[in-house]
Amino acid sequence: MKKNISDYKALVNEYLQEALPIEPGCFKTLYKAMNYSLEAGGKRIRPILMQLSYEAVGGKGDISRYLCAIEMIHTYSLIHDDLPAMDNDDLRRGIPTNHIVFGEAAAILAGDGLLNLAFEYMLEDALKHGGTERVRAAYILSQASGIKGMIAGQILDIESENKVINLQTLDTIHLHKTGALIAAATKMGAVLGLGTPEEIEILEEYGKDIGKVFQIIDDILDKVSTDKELGKPTGSDVKNHKNTYLSFYSVEECYCIADKLTKRALLSLDNLKGDTTLLAQIAEELIKRRN
Amino acid sequence: MKKNISDYKALVNEYLQEALPIEPGCFKTLYKAMNYSLEAGGKRIRPILMQLSYEAVGGKGDISRYLCAIEMIHTYSLIHDDLPAMDNDDLRRGIPTNHIVFGEAAAILAGDGLLNLAFEYMLEDALKHGGTERVRAAYILSQASGIKGMIAGQILDIESENKVINLQTLDTIHLHKTGALIAAATKMGAVLGLGTPEEIEILEEYGKDIGKVFQIIDDILDKVSTDKELGKPTGSDVKNHKNTYLSFYSVEECYCIADKLTKRALLSLDNLKGDTTLLAQIAEELIKRRN
Repeated sequence: MKKNISDYKALVNEYLQEALPIEPGCFKTLYKAMNYSLEAGGKRIRPILMQLSYEAVGGKGDISRYLCAIEMIHTYSLIHDDLPAMDNDDLRRGIPTNHIVFGEAAAILAGDGLLNLAFEYMLEDALKHGGTERVRAAYILSQASGIKGMIAGQILDIESENKVINLQTLDTIHLHKTGALIAAATKMGAVLGLGTPEEIEILEEYGKDIGKVFQIIDDILDKVSTDKELGKPTGSDVKNHKNTYLSFYSVEECYCIADKLTKRALLSLDNLKGDTTLLAQIAEELIKRRN
Repeated sequence: MKKNISDYKALVNEYLQEALPIEPGCFKTLYKAMNYSLEAGGKRIRPILMQLSYEAVGGKGDISRYLCAIEMIHTYSLIHDDLPAMDNDDLRRGIPTNHIVFGEAAAILAGDGLLNLAFEYMLEDALKHGGTERVRAAYILSQASGIKGMIAGQILDIESENKVINLQTLDTIHLHKTGALIAAATKMGAVLGLGTPEEIEILEEYGKDIGKVFQIIDDILDKVSTDKELGKPTGSDVKNHKNTYLSFYSVEECYCIADKLTKRALLSLDNLKGDTTLLAQIAEELIKRRN
């Protein structure tokens, strides 16, 4: 029977469940805080994209360590992003944010712990299996999550609050803050599946396009959705005086841009020989999402 | 001419200078904050120990990436440790702490950035050189700095404030918070230098012993030194209601324990064939240090 996207999500959740650090007795708060945010749900879009990209280039082995690693890094970034000194958000995925439950010190350390664990987890696997593609995948993730990737996006985002920025700066923020990790997911999948240089490039470009769609829709939902639908406070962009695509375009124009990007992403998938049905489905659903 | 410890420190500072991320224009605060703490000085004891251990087992190549990585991780831990939600310290190495200069948000992200950069830096090198020993060294560091190492020590330390703990718990804190990274430094050096399993074990044990000496002397200096001598506020352990070795032993008893550990560390070095003169000198100087 053909698998669908929710099967992949279930698979990722299973891997994460196995990866959840087991509390060794004396460091309870740290482990509870890490697991709380890892288990809080979410779309698991990054690991799902990685696994689908892996299969699209013919990968058949177990890359669960890398699926978990990218979700750990995404989760740590949310924990730190929600801190009072950063976005100061109380609600995430429908439940109180990490520092609200465990306090700021534990939330900072839980974030540090997840970031560190992602690399520990991949390095252990790379050491066990040998070969270069696993080291390369870990390196790609480190670049995407680092100071030329996601963290750069975070600082620019924070520094741009309460300021008038231009569209180019907004694009730079999103390309780094959200786009880098999504494009890393598809690229890592292609690398781990031993894809050709062309396949790797196609999947990276697909990731960049849908990453931008993801962010545009995020901006729209923050404005037009309700707290309940979204699982986090809507209007937080306005509250934090953040620039969004809606500072530059109407909702209709945003959907038009997202539509063009989605079409380009779908077109690029045609150049892959493997099965890309679900990658196409994700691209189509991203633009329709309501939370 | 024979090199001395200050030559090694100069070498490490040179490597760090080259490793300092170059500001790409739009993420100024992040890069400034990272470089501020990396350049703030410090003893560079971990990279020096790694390089000496590397040479003690006959290593002759360039391991600058790993020397920088361990110092980046040490530096990030200090930045996060000093935050208001953690130890809330205003002074470090004689200058204002990172969040005092750059604000809390930038300090959190600078810490995240340095942690991430350490792995990015090692993975790039491991990918370039191939072989397993570099991946293994990065994995050892990830374990030491992670949730079963340094981060575990941090959370237990914070949770033990204002509480009466026993000596075993205090030992657990220090073994994780300080000892893990120092023992990782010597072990990584031995692994990178292709030491035998016996050599790797001897150098790891040496690292554990002097790591504990380092912490015992730290506790003493916090009580008996002056702010100026130490470059950071003394009495901070009392201020933060921290348990230290002085909660259990007198200063004289502490020196006696440190002396025994130092002697054991020196004795274990006798089992190595390579030149261990400077490793022995470091062990002897640690117990005499005044800052």
